[in-house]
Amino acid sequence: MAKTEKISEAVIRRLPIYLRYLTHLQEMGITTVSSQQMGSTLDVNPAQIRKDLAAFGEFGKKGIGYDVQYLIGKIRHILNIDQELRIAVVGAGHLGHAISNYNDYLRDNMRIVAIFDTDPQKFGEEIAGLKIQPLAELKQTVKTRHIRLGIITVPDFAAQMVADELIDAGIEGILNFAPITLRTDKEVRIDYADLTSSLQSLAYYLN
Amino acid sequence: MAKTEKISEAVIRRLPIYLRYLTHLQEMGITTVSSQQMGSTLDVNPAQIRKDLAAFGEFGKKGIGYDVQYLIGKIRHILNIDQELRIAVVGAGHLGHAISNYNDYLRDNMRIVAIFDTDPQKFGEEIAGLKIQPLAELKQTVKTRHIRLGIITVPDFAAQMVADELIDAGIEGILNFAPITLRTDKEVRIDYADLTSSLQSLAYYLN
Repeated sequence: MAKTEKISEAVIRRLPIYLRYLTHLQEMGITTVSSQQMGSTLDVNPAQIRKDLAAFGEFGKKGIGYDVQYLIGKIRHILNIDQELRIAVVGAGHLGHAISNYNDYLRDNMRIVAIFDTDPQKFGEEIAGLKIQPLAELKQTVKTRHIRLGIITVPDFAAQMVADELIDAGIEGILNFAPITLRTDKEVRIDYADLTSSLQSLAYYLN
Repeated sequence: MAKTEKISEAVIRRLPIYLRYLTHLQEMGITTVSSQQMGSTLDVNPAQIRKDLAAFGEFGKKGIGYDVQYLIGKIRHILNIDQELRIAVVGAGHLGHAISNYNDYLRDNMRIVAIFDTDPQKFGEEIAGLKIQPLAELKQTVKTRHIRLGIITVPDFAAQMVADELIDAGIEGILNFAPITLRTDKEVRIDYADLTSSLQSLAYYLN
């Protein structure tokens, strides 16, 4: 399956939602699904679903629908999650704890394999089976454990420093929970998951 | 300022990022900004910024740029955050703690005013100045305190039940951190902030 052209951010945000639904169907032994069924469960317009899936060359068969297993493989490939992706969390506060506990929910070869903090009192403490490491060990750990993604859960004033360290260590993508905009001159993808932005986007849809 | 037509989800996701940047500029006494300056700091194509802002009828002046204060007011209006928006958090685990501590970062009249849990051992415990309340008090509290948004930070198996309670209480928008798709037949906006989806979207941008 060749990668198609650039897919819009909105589609990329919906694909994980389609994937979760399709995976549930597969677990329940369902082999085909129509855009109507998907749309009704996911509260997305079926025409939107057909358009989204067509964007990467996937067309359902009229009257039959999409092949669930094929579509799962296709979406996993588009999202790059048909390979193992190791993740480091920096910041072992409440949010770092909550996220590290999330490992059970992560699917598709994604796994948090290391967590870092700067507070010596936390070093060695265990969260979800991971020992909290000093930030000084980040670079070495990223290299030896082949970590590709970083999650920033430190306070805002420390986030740029942590981002610089992650990028310097060779991290390729960052999910930033700190409420600041990060800067870099390197080719690293930075996504924002901060609460303020999420709530502001949500507020738009209020009456 | 009249509301313009439906703005795309991708634009709605970028507006909070523009807003944060513009607010910083304003705090530093900057009164005008060009799309080039914005794009360079935010790592967004200036043409994209101009297109996004044009979507709600805002055009900068050639050679001068955008009026920072006017643009802030316009974006706040579009996002419905020029009014007070009260928020309830359901789930007082690590994530609920982390989010409630976020109140200091929330701007623009958004405020978490209540937090709920079902564990009697937690009732009365204080997080960021808020006493944890029994879920049974949700409906009453939402009404009397005029709460419009809900944040779900409970485990996946409890999330649908909590969503039903929030919607029944009259909540208009939900930000769901639990890793399941929620269903409702009511006109309520549900946004997803779960980690798996965020990481999967991020993975797309890896090489």
